[in-house]
Amino acid sequence: MPVYRIDLAYDGTRFHGYARQPHMRTVQGVLEDALEVLTGPVQTFVAGRTDRGVHAAAQVVSFATDTPVDTALIQRSLNRRLGPEMAVLACAEVDANFHARFSATGRAYTYLVLDRESPDPFLAATSWHFGRRLDEGLMNRAAEHLVGEHDFASFCRRAVARSTTREVRSAVWSRRRSDLLAFDVEASSFCHQMVRSLVALLVEVGRGRVPPDAVAGILATRDREVAKGAAPPHGLTLVRVDYH
Amino acid sequence: MPVYRIDLAYDGTRFHGYARQPHMRTVQGVLEDALEVLTGPVQTFVAGRTDRGVHAAAQVVSFATDTPVDTALIQRSLNRRLGPEMAVLACAEVDANFHARFSATGRAYTYLVLDRESPDPFLAATSWHFGRRLDEGLMNRAAEHLVGEHDFASFCRRAVARSTTREVRSAVWSRRRSDLLAFDVEASSFCHQMVRSLVALLVEVGRGRVPPDAVAGILATRDREVAKGAAPPHGLTLVRVDYH
Repeated sequence: MPVYRIDLAYDGTRFHGYARQPHMRTVQGVLEDALEVLTGPVQTFVAGRTDRGVHAAAQVVSFATDTPVDTALIQRSLNRRLGPEMAVLACAEVDANFHARFSATGRAYTYLVLDRESPDPFLAATSWHFGRRLDEGLMNRAAEHLVGEHDFASFCRRAVARSTTREVRSAVWSRRRSDLLAFDVEASSFCHQMVRSLVALLVEVGRGRVPPDAVAGILATRDREVAKGAAPPHGLTLVRVDYH
Repeated sequence: MPVYRIDLAYDGTRFHGYARQPHMRTVQGVLEDALEVLTGPVQTFVAGRTDRGVHAAAQVVSFATDTPVDTALIQRSLNRRLGPEMAVLACAEVDANFHARFSATGRAYTYLVLDRESPDPFLAATSWHFGRRLDEGLMNRAAEHLVGEHDFASFCRRAVARSTTREVRSAVWSRRRSDLLAFDVEASSFCHQMVRSLVALLVEVGRGRVPPDAVAGILATRDREVAKGAAPPHGLTLVRVDYH
């Protein structure tokens, strides 16, 4: 059965997250309903399920279908129906073994923090407006403790009996503008709310309330109650999914 | 009477333009209503009246008032009340002769055009999604004809008995990304719908329908009927106002 890959971007503001839920407007629900018109009912798989309010600049979805599919038509038709809130960046037939989730070898997220007093109308939907200046030097010293393979239980919403060990490949803060901090983090995969939980802690470091080296200890406790808190979802964007 | 200057950014999407109008939600109306609580009734002046749907990253407003004003309080209070759709970037007492409109010596606008097939959810509010590729080399050759002092009647919505002569100081297209064109244009001032009218014509040049050198002839006709058309307002942003 031929398998297709869709590369997708969406503004998460008006969706109740990626995953289909009854009576809720979700990215998966909207996408599958629109696809169904062209392909008949399909089951889609996604590289990274994003929470309510989280955005994606480059999400990957796959599905298999018996019906032959005109990929250019799918792209045009979905863009006309779903855009500009959601955009199909590409649609192509791929190897029959391809699976958006299980074939993925890495994910990259970016979290934006506006660290100035005044809001920014043009970044309101995609960044966390944090009213005071943060020290990205401290935040980077703290972030270094995250890189490598660790049990991130302190930063994961509990999923009973699932492993919370992940390999973080890089985690770096940089200034996109004098008043806009970006946290770029890459890992094999992330557990639920992991990036937002990390950001919440690193922002505490950046404002001077938690010393950078305390992060190692918090990680070692493997206790969600110690780190607790999560940065708001709308600052977070899935920016890349890697495949071999 | 002390005079104050407010530097303002706003997302124009949900406003019926800058200028106050009865029964309409306008930037001026919302701003003056919020100011009035702190200063009593004031009359404000603005550097560049933006049309419905047009944005500002750095608008300038001035007002005079007898009541002594705590500028830090104004900034904080307006941001709390109006943000993040509108943001007060700065508020300061200025020279008593300062007038946001009449003291301004130049204005700079940027117009964004997404020239690819797929929409971009993150640029939907601030760029014109033009579905096909444009040739910025042609557009820049055309734009060169605009620089200098000219009668821009061909590109101005009529204002009876007002001069339509303006000095354009620069007009350049560049790629912000491989699929995002930006038109940066600076002038002493602009007449009504001038930037959007110019963009509409230059996009016709970029898609190969109008030769670049035809722009000189269209300018020379001083006839709005010849150029006609205006690019959509949401691609346009006032990005700078200059004072001596």
